[in-house]
Amino acid sequence: MENCIFCKIAAGEIPSTKVYEDDQVLAFRDLEPQAPVHILIIPKKHYASILDIPCDATSPLPAMAAAAQKIAQEQGIAQSGFRLVINTGKDGGQSVPHLHMHLLGGREFGWPAG
Amino acid sequence: MENCIFCKIAAGEIPSTKVYEDDQVLAFRDLEPQAPVHILIIPKKHYASILDIPCDATSPLPAMAAAAQKIAQEQGIAQSGFRLVINTGKDGGQSVPHLHMHLLGGREFGWPAG
Repeated sequence: MENCIFCKIAAGEIPSTKVYEDDQVLAFRDLEPQAPVHILIIPKKHYASILDIPCDATSPLPAMAAAAQKIAQEQGIAQSGFRLVINTGKDGGQSVPHLHMHLLGGREFGWPAG
Repeated sequence: MENCIFCKIAAGEIPSTKVYEDDQVLAFRDLEPQAPVHILIIPKKHYASILDIPCDATSPLPAMAAAAQKIAQEQGIAQSGFRLVINTGKDGGQSVPHLHMHLLGGREFGWPAG
């Protein structure tokens, strides 16, 4: 997707602090971290938001969840806990129109979630 | 899963304000809403957290995302936006040890997400 910053990161055209990668998914550190662990998990394929993903066997979510499981273990937050957040649209606070999941850990998170 | 409140809700043994149901997923209103729209989407099958789900074709996430897409449309928040949150463990603020996704909408959400 032309002019999509996350597509450019996925293609390696813009650098990122990569923490995980497989054929479907890339994960990298958020540039404005809100917690000791703050990682963005994105599908390499472009979807503007969760409203645009297929919900059959081609859904990107299982691969994104697999990445979250691995990263939580690697970052040492699987036991202490973490929060996954997917923002959609203006009210949700979605800042980049390429589906991404925030993985937040390393501190206790309050409620509500924003 | 014996003594799991969300399994009992899924089985109809404990009442809930149901907003969506299919063979895999149930969605109902949170008893302590944090936004005009605050709905919990759960797989009927018991998983203690997102760390425990399979990440192959049997992942419950595509069906949960399909429910989120439908509910967002029905609740009139697909255009305005919404936030999806999955809490895991103590730091994440997970209150019930049965995987659930919070769908929050109807107001603007701040950042960070807790």
